Amino acid sequence: MAIALPKTTEQVAEIVKWANDNNIAIVPSGGRTGLSGGAVASNGELVVAFDKMNKVLEFEKTTQQVKCQAGVITEQLQQFATDNELYYPVDFASSGSSQIGGNIATNAGGIKVIRYGLTRDWVMGLTVVTGKGEILELNSGLIKNATGYDLRHLFIGSEGTLGLITEATIKFTRPPTNLTVLLLSIEDMTKVTELLNLFQKDVDLTAFEFFSEEALQKVMAHHQLPRPVETQGAFYCLLEFDADSEERLEKALESFEAGLEQELILDGVMSQSQQQAEELWKYREYISETISARKPYKNDISVTPDKVSEFLAKVDNIVSEQYPDFEVIWFGHIGDGNLHLNILAPESMSYEDFTAACEQVNPLIFNVLKNLGGSISAEHGVGLLKKPYLNYSRSDAEIAYMKGIKAVFDPNNIMNPGKLI
Amino acid sequence: MAIALPKTTEQVAEIVKWANDNNIAIVPSGGRTGLSGGAVASNGELVVAFDKMNKVLEFEKTTQQVKCQAGVITEQLQQFATDNELYYPVDFASSGSSQIGGNIATNAGGIKVIRYGLTRDWVMGLTVVTGKGEILELNSGLIKNATGYDLRHLFIGSEGTLGLITEATIKFTRPPTNLTVLLLSIEDMTKVTELLNLFQKDVDLTAFEFFSEEALQKVMAHHQLPRPVETQGAFYCLLEFDADSEERLEKALESFEAGLEQELILDGVMSQSQQQAEELWKYREYISETISARKPYKNDISVTPDKVSEFLAKVDNIVSEQYPDFEVIWFGHIGDGNLHLNILAPESMSYEDFTAACEQVNPLIFNVLKNLGGSISAEHGVGLLKKPYLNYSRSDAEIAYMKGIKAVFDPNNIMNPGKLI
Ligand SMILES: Cc1cc2nc3c(=O)[nH]c(=O)nc-3n(C[C@H](O)[C@H](O)[C@H](O)COP(=O)(O)OP(=O)(O)OC[C@H]3O[C@@H](n4cnc5c(N)ncnc54)[C@H](O)[C@@H]3O)c2cc1C
Ligand SMILES: Cc1cc2nc3c(=O)[nH]c(=O)nc-3n(C[C@H](O)[C@H](O)[C@H](O)COP(=O)(O)OP(=O)(O)OC[C@H]3O[C@@H](n4cnc5c(N)ncnc54)[C@H](O)[C@@H]3O)c2cc1C
Repeated sequence: MAIALPKTTEQVAEIVKWANDNNIAIVPSGGRTGLSGGAVASNGELVVAFDKMNKVLEFEKTTQQVKCQAGVITEQLQQFATDNELYYPVDFASSGSSQIGGNIATNAGGIKVIRYGLTRDWVMGLTVVTGKGEILELNSGLIKNATGYDLRHLFIGSEGTLGLITEATIKFTRPPTNLTVLLLSIEDMTKVTELLNLFQKDVDLTAFEFFSEEALQKVMAHHQLPRPVETQGAFYCLLEFDADSEERLEKALESFEAGLEQELILDGVMSQSQQQAEELWKYREYISETISARKPYKNDISVTPDKVSEFLAKVDNIVSEQYPDFEVIWFGHIGDGNLHLNILAPESMSYEDFTAACEQVNPLIFNVLKNLGGSISAEHGVGLLKKPYLNYSRSDAEIAYMKGIKAVFDPNNIMNPGKLI
Repeated sequence: MAIALPKTTEQVAEIVKWANDNNIAIVPSGGRTGLSGGAVASNGELVVAFDKMNKVLEFEKTTQQVKCQAGVITEQLQQFATDNELYYPVDFASSGSSQIGGNIATNAGGIKVIRYGLTRDWVMGLTVVTGKGEILELNSGLIKNATGYDLRHLFIGSEGTLGLITEATIKFTRPPTNLTVLLLSIEDMTKVTELLNLFQKDVDLTAFEFFSEEALQKVMAHHQLPRPVETQGAFYCLLEFDADSEERLEKALESFEAGLEQELILDGVMSQSQQQAEELWKYREYISETISARKPYKNDISVTPDKVSEFLAKVDNIVSEQYPDFEVIWFGHIGDGNLHLNILAPESMSYEDFTAACEQVNPLIFNVLKNLGGSISAEHGVGLLKKPYLNYSRSDAEIAYMKGIKAVFDPNNIMNPGKLI
């Protein structure tokens, strides 16, 4: 396996032309934090990595737009925004290692999507090198540009199969002023959508996360943290909002009280300072890391938010029927209908047997998803891992059109072959 | 010319299959309010109109999403949202006639883009019939769905050249509670970006429009309205924001005072009631209609907001040098960098001579745009009118990829041939 570390867009174009001439496959590589194997190169491909294209190129204060190279680390971009009294709201646990190019290639989501949307919503322009080796400047920062197909949106989420993203123009926004966290315990998931609506009616939530009592217990044990809410529930919701005015804070408190009255909530606490807010976030943020030693089998799936509780109940049934001794840990971005299903093997079982067993269950879960119009990959992409299941979320006709589009941009099929489609 | 008025997606698919078999070209037609001739059928094409597909199909209160047929009138959708205590924020002067399908096909913008984005940002799902006659369900309402190329975004803004949009899932949002308008007079355009930034720093503007003294004079004369702001300026900015809290209102007033102090503003008024807000909007909204009798030559163009004043000065120079006796009326959505340039003929000149003269000036204006990285069509699309100029905004390579994509979805080139590309 060879690695190329280009420094400019022109060098990337040269590499792609050379690869075309020599029939060499290319795997674009960002921060390698992807969870679907999209950046895996196990067939002697040439890896094109962006580690040396890590510069912020231009910042225009008046438009709040920054132009940067694809290899800039997500967290660096967030910091750059903060240094300029602005805010880049796309955030998730791997932002210390992932690159902005990788974020765009996977259309990364994260914990603030409910308020701020996905990576897609912040990309104002792209420089790409297509599979043919041609350089395209796609919408250089314009808010309005009605001149035909928006190729920018086609490259966002294309997982390196159409070409390489070399530069991006990203917009920032005004930072929140007083992020406040509510942690609520709930009896079950049947009323979670009602709860979401109760708050969203008056307050712009910046996050609406959930996790199960099982997840909480593991985090408390692993990190020696106290129980955060007195009354135990089957599940917990973490809500965040910007208490930027007295009115807003009051509205949130009113919603909280209404939630107790309507028995949507068992109990809850609200942060009184930034430090307390951070403490409460830990119960949600530590989950991944806490269970990682057990090598969970992960599924990142979504339905529309109104179907969350129906979906969760059905999957719980399937797993407990098929494998009564598997542990199921639920958490995720419930406000977006995005659930992270993590299955833990019984201590006695080998990892291989366990993975094989989980793969047996996948079709059952994906069938439920298909019937509910959900997605087999909410935000982690398809890559290698979900490729066998793509037809649960996309029709044969759609997949055929996708292949047609790929052939237009990458006629020799050298860009990340075997991934996605 | 024949017109088909299908009632279902399946009927549309039948029509397209039949048209393919018989080599008949199709022109999709919405409300026919488009300003680029995209729905013109002058070569014996079959017009497929959506007037009989005008039903709201499903409304899901918890997700705030509505599924409707393509022929629903934009204003009806806005009203449907209001009836459900929600808000559909895409709005413009033709929303009483335009259809949601046409809005999606042109990715319509309008007066609230600065806060709420374009039509693209509200489309959660599409049902389309491709140029091959195949029905695709593109993302049925999911917030997160990372399963390959987002074909939904490809159809948005494709002006009927890839296929027909038959149904759409649209999301609504919380309505603003206390829309408040500021009308400001300014000395010239050099500091307009500074003014925008001053307000955006603390207040989420829902509109930032502008017009010239010439535009104002015409509206005052035509509608017998008083001068709205005491001190006359060369230009006027209309700002709207949601004064949903005392804090917000105070911040806006502080920005206003800072603007006066920093001499960014000459003078201004703020609405004290909804009625006053509506009165102030008239000065902006009446412009199009007021000058329509003079059959203005329109250009809908954009640059990034930081380049607005440079662009405007350069174009003013070009027009006044080339045609000193043409009147130029400027207005538009300046907060998005979107300018409407309207040129009025001298009373003596024939309409044909005038149009020909304007077309002579187009390349000069578009060259300035090209150098500033702007767009020759901000929100009205390309259609027939801007097609000859597409290469000022898109490179030859980009246009070639667009043609490649069209061939994938419409191999027999029956969908709106001769438009866009
Ligand atoms: C602990 C943890 C938590 C996570 N949480 C989230 C989350 O909440 N939300 C979420 O969306 N994701 C999450 N992820 C997944 C991952 O971080 C994201 O997908 C991220 O965007 C990947 O970026 P990367 O730079 O690491 O890309 P890589 O992993 O290097 O690559 C991902 C894909 O993009 C392609 N690619 C990379 N760079 C380019 C480029 N410049 N041009 C073209 N193609 C390119 C690769 O070929 C590959 O197909 C998480 C991952 C971890 C490990
Ligand atoms: C007074 C006035 C003010 C305006 N202000 C604005 C503004 O502020 N912002 C803005 O963006 N636009 C504005 N417009 C332009 C116009 O209203 C928009 O472009 C609108 O979205 C067009 O919708 P329509 O239904 O009338 O489409 P049509 O004019 O019928 O068609 C427009 C294009 O879309 C295609 N099309 C229509 N329906 C479908 C379908 N179902 N499937 C596939 N293709 C289809 C047509 O083939 C054509 O290419 C204005 C127009 C007027 C007259």
